[in-house]
Amino acid sequence: CRTSQQHSIALTVCCRYVSKAAAKTQMEFEYDGPSMKTEVPGPRSKELTKQLGEIQNVGAVHFFCNYEESRGNYLVDVDGNRMLDVYTQISSIPIGYPAEFPMFTSFSSQSAFVNRPALGIMPPENFPEKLAESLLSVAPSGMSRVQTMACGSCSNENAYKAMFIWYRNKERGHNIPSDEDMSSCMINQSPGCPDLSILSFMGGFHGRTMGCLATTHSKAIHKLDVPSFDWPIAPFPKLKYPLEEFTRENAQEEARCLEEVEDLIVQWRQKGRPVAGIVIEPIQAEGGDNHATPDFFKKLRNIARKHGSAFHVDEVQTGGGTTGKFWAHEHWGMDDPADIVSFSKKMLTGGFYHKDELQAYRIFNTWMGDPSKNLFLAEVLNVIRRENLLEEVTRSGKTLLQGLYQLQDQYPNLLSSARGQGTFCAIDIRDDATRNSIILKARDKGVLLGGCGDRSIRFRPALVFKEHHVHMFLNVFSDVLAEHN
Amino acid sequence: CRTSQQHSIALTVCCRYVSKAAAKTQMEFEYDGPSMKTEVPGPRSKELTKQLGEIQNVGAVHFFCNYEESRGNYLVDVDGNRMLDVYTQISSIPIGYPAEFPMFTSFSSQSAFVNRPALGIMPPENFPEKLAESLLSVAPSGMSRVQTMACGSCSNENAYKAMFIWYRNKERGHNIPSDEDMSSCMINQSPGCPDLSILSFMGGFHGRTMGCLATTHSKAIHKLDVPSFDWPIAPFPKLKYPLEEFTRENAQEEARCLEEVEDLIVQWRQKGRPVAGIVIEPIQAEGGDNHATPDFFKKLRNIARKHGSAFHVDEVQTGGGTTGKFWAHEHWGMDDPADIVSFSKKMLTGGFYHKDELQAYRIFNTWMGDPSKNLFLAEVLNVIRRENLLEEVTRSGKTLLQGLYQLQDQYPNLLSSARGQGTFCAIDIRDDATRNSIILKARDKGVLLGGCGDRSIRFRPALVFKEHHVHMFLNVFSDVLAEHN
Repeated sequence: CRTSQQHSIALTVCCRYVSKAAAKTQMEFEYDGPSMKTEVPGPRSKELTKQLGEIQNVGAVHFFCNYEESRGNYLVDVDGNRMLDVYTQISSIPIGYPAEFPMFTSFSSQSAFVNRPALGIMPPENFPEKLAESLLSVAPSGMSRVQTMACGSCSNENAYKAMFIWYRNKERGHNIPSDEDMSSCMINQSPGCPDLSILSFMGGFHGRTMGCLATTHSKAIHKLDVPSFDWPIAPFPKLKYPLEEFTRENAQEEARCLEEVEDLIVQWRQKGRPVAGIVIEPIQAEGGDNHATPDFFKKLRNIARKHGSAFHVDEVQTGGGTTGKFWAHEHWGMDDPADIVSFSKKMLTGGFYHKDELQAYRIFNTWMGDPSKNLFLAEVLNVIRRENLLEEVTRSGKTLLQGLYQLQDQYPNLLSSARGQGTFCAIDIRDDATRNSIILKARDKGVLLGGCGDRSIRFRPALVFKEHHVHMFLNVFSDVLAEHN
Repeated sequence: CRTSQQHSIALTVCCRYVSKAAAKTQMEFEYDGPSMKTEVPGPRSKELTKQLGEIQNVGAVHFFCNYEESRGNYLVDVDGNRMLDVYTQISSIPIGYPAEFPMFTSFSSQSAFVNRPALGIMPPENFPEKLAESLLSVAPSGMSRVQTMACGSCSNENAYKAMFIWYRNKERGHNIPSDEDMSSCMINQSPGCPDLSILSFMGGFHGRTMGCLATTHSKAIHKLDVPSFDWPIAPFPKLKYPLEEFTRENAQEEARCLEEVEDLIVQWRQKGRPVAGIVIEPIQAEGGDNHATPDFFKKLRNIARKHGSAFHVDEVQTGGGTTGKFWAHEHWGMDDPADIVSFSKKMLTGGFYHKDELQAYRIFNTWMGDPSKNLFLAEVLNVIRRENLLEEVTRSGKTLLQGLYQLQDQYPNLLSSARGQGTFCAIDIRDDATRNSIILKARDKGVLLGGCGDRSIRFRPALVFKEHHVHMFLNVFSDVLAEHN
């Protein structure tokens, strides 16, 4: 077929094949650029969408993919369109689209994929070693304990539970529940099910299961019609960009928000729903790529400590290297940045790190994650280290942000507030309709982008997005902007 | 090493090797019986538990496993102990421990494992086909739609959301939210986050994330210290076994519970927290293997219909063939058994089936399950069909229950209430301490069992548990009981 023929040619031209045994394997294959055959979604995607529509809701389906043909930064769809992927499955592909992993060839790893253990009771022999090689090798400062989970929402749900349990033990002065605790919890009543709360921020996103959803405030459509908890919601700073040009105004705005946080903690304590924990993203992602300064986070962390609330940093979208540091909170420069750090997406497995004090004795479910994902993660981390991908991200991120600044100067009526850390960048568009049109036009030209917030575009390439990919993206983006000016 | 040498001998004696290409592969390998080398946990398990304890809570870890050496009904631990597994990773291994799956050899399936898509926006080409081959091929009566999820808790959480959304649309008379809905939901307030409830049953277990946990009432330790919702909790019938010998008393008990259900629905409506849905397990598993009759479930389903509440059957533990039918609710003999059926565990992926009316337009997350698990499930279903495993389960289940009845006659002071459907059986032990001692003694003799409820033992073998495995189990169990009489 035409597609795979073209694919072979592209590979021959721009890459050299490496043997399976070689260490670099999947990093070496890549196409030389986008290649579009149809509009997107093309006829085959439309046909499959109709087919899937008979089985489930397809309201959010963009198009169908050919993952076998996808390589590196390029996602290939079922109509043979090859797109530069600057969205990466909602920011969840760490090192691009690898063709294969060497570990699949060994018998023992097959068994790890087929026989899924109940990790909390009967872990496989290599489980501690694989955790050490993977998750522990990138543990945040001050944290040596980690619990895996199946997805981002479960990670946050269980992190909240760990904070509630910790808080109640603190209130009791020990970890032995009373008879009243034991009997009242069975019927959902306090003191066994206590009136505790998690403080979250307007614009935050922490998942869509019911505990998480009570702390998610990015879009109404996520929350509508689902019962919730009466928990405090603080304003997240609305800063002006570039941050360094508006330091005084931004500092005032952050001070206002921090004051509100303290007020809310006091109010909710008085209401009889003390704040057991504060949850925040280092950069509000889904809510519109809203940044705050290291100073804000340092002060917030101190407020949490002062009021006896746990501090939970949600790195589900920001973690895994995309900001140029492995964790976005490393940019704050703190030794003790958090009590809990949750992750998922690029980490391939969900889970959370926590301090010893938040030892979660009653956190449990059947699967507790999936050890096959730890095997992948260990391989991914090897690639990140070997290829110095964090440096790559920092370099590409600078070029990307520089390019966005230039475009913003060129199209002041169309673009504003270019911002970012590493390649975790965003820009605001005049309005929602224009934003959506730009995303669709860029896609038809072979560049995949995603939106966030009311009118922002978020850039979420994989860690293998190099400077020449940035230039390729900027060229297409510039063409699309010219059409919208 | 001695273990693998023994393993080769066992294979030579009792099995014939089949080539990879042959259809039966993993079904053919099995050991000829348990083989114990150390007490359990053995020294290597203890060492690894200590190691893992540095990283995470190990309070629930039984021992570490060698999944590479595990085959069929036999789980091998890291000390070389080979045990007949009648617990199967908390009832989550469908066809025993397979050594390998043929699909791993093809390049395209490797890509499916490595490149995890965001299924809700960019599914792989074969996704509709694999859903049809796997989940849809075993869809419950009246349901042609299915949504995959990463785990059992997420499945129930999202099923609850689908019921809330459906209920609110019904209340509104359409699916267009008001401005007040949209603005109030952003701050967790009604009407956007409405005061709706899910009715659940005392003794039920539906998971441990916060929405699920509000409907879970099997053990205090699951719920303690976690804030909850004020939702109605009905009594689950406490029946006498064998059911057919106590039909009149049991019918009275069921009538009492059904009356209470209706009262609660009315009360909660009056309280301003209408019951949007009722959730129930066909057999309360974690809560102690509590059965109810088809008549109870038929009437309950009618009560749900009468009061306009959705009816959600949680088949996370009962589904996948273990009761002798693919879904336990098939034993009720109804054309329209439920509005939602959730699953996980033996199905390898989480998710829920639902009727068209519960079309869940706003059910979404990043991964929406894991398509690699659908590939496995399709293979597993092929094996179930080819080997007529549901018949096998029915046959083994009869033998198992018969054996339990005999032991119960033999040890009337020790055992009571033997009960079961298929191999999904249980028996009550004199008291909690004796139950736990029996489980540990059986393990040291090479049989893995699990507890449930206050003093029950639950039997949860894989679907490949044949009559000769039943006899092997009964022999060991009988020896252990003799020691406890």
